[in-house]
Amino acid sequence: MNLIEMDILLKKTLKPGRYIHSVNTMKVAVKLAEHYGEDVEKAKVAGLLHDCAKNLNDGQTKRYCLENDIALSPLEENQVFLMHGAVGAVLARQKYGVEDPMVLNAIKYHTTGFAGMNTLDKIIFLADYIEPGRTHCDVQEARSLAFVSLDKALVSAFNCVIKYVISQNGLIHPFTIEARNSILLMTEKP
Amino acid sequence: MNLIEMDILLKKTLKPGRYIHSVNTMKVAVKLAEHYGEDVEKAKVAGLLHDCAKNLNDGQTKRYCLENDIALSPLEENQVFLMHGAVGAVLARQKYGVEDPMVLNAIKYHTTGFAGMNTLDKIIFLADYIEPGRTHCDVQEARSLAFVSLDKALVSAFNCVIKYVISQNGLIHPFTIEARNSILLMTEKP
Repeated sequence: MNLIEMDILLKKTLKPGRYIHSVNTMKVAVKLAEHYGEDVEKAKVAGLLHDCAKNLNDGQTKRYCLENDIALSPLEENQVFLMHGAVGAVLARQKYGVEDPMVLNAIKYHTTGFAGMNTLDKIIFLADYIEPGRTHCDVQEARSLAFVSLDKALVSAFNCVIKYVISQNGLIHPFTIEARNSILLMTEKP
Repeated sequence: MNLIEMDILLKKTLKPGRYIHSVNTMKVAVKLAEHYGEDVEKAKVAGLLHDCAKNLNDGQTKRYCLENDIALSPLEENQVFLMHGAVGAVLARQKYGVEDPMVLNAIKYHTTGFAGMNTLDKIIFLADYIEPGRTHCDVQEARSLAFVSLDKALVSAFNCVIKYVISQNGLIHPFTIEARNSILLMTEKP
């Protein structure tokens, strides 16, 4: 399936607002890929498809996890929306014909991050976070850092996500903490 | 060694401010133990000795870890002060003659927490956090909750610790996240 076919299928699948967000994320991901010397085609596909499982409800998401041997931790059982990345990677492969493991991985972890993210993983996480339609707290800080330092922008995004989850009395995904720690440990002594 | 002997040795070991904090923590731990039906003697010893390794510098702390087979993660190598709980448990056993595993465990994890804390673990963590000498951000919230709900007070404390570490651009210990998640998962659907 080429990008135009992916776009047509995605537009049919997602609600209009979510589809616009996906296109916006793709556009920012492309700019970041160009800036940081990452593969633009991979960024385009991963950016467009990162939320391709967002139309599924909790029951459908859980069924996809079960059918594809994706284990759910107690935290993920409780907050099933956290699995739309992992299920998105399955759908990207099964329905959109994406085979590239780098693209699938970037889709899989775009919500939580993980320790040892590569440049494409970071670009997709950040593009999703800062695309122009986003208006959440502190997004300006990450936006202003995005083309200065991918790592600093990402830490800013993680900080905001963690503080938001705390404000909602929600569960914090351990992967987000590990991702943030691994970047801080690799970049500078805190 | 009885409590009076422990107190004399601790006073000789710690700086005056840290010793006063230890006694304060013990007093709050005793009140919490009485309130929540926990063993008062265990709370007394754990509260008094929780910081008994705080006089050690990073090099000494690392040597104790090495000599006692305490593995340091990259995060802990970077923030060695996080190990004063684990080393404190070693000193409590070797120098203060404490054998009770519940007391040693409460000392070990009083800085980070961990998933599946028991009542004594929670009491020591919280007493350390809210004792009257503490003036850090949001301590009033945890103080006002301490005798209403141990779990709610603890989540408040964890929230503040996490936000403080973020404000310092520091590394967040995964155990703190796991401790907070496990309490939220066991108490109420977030």
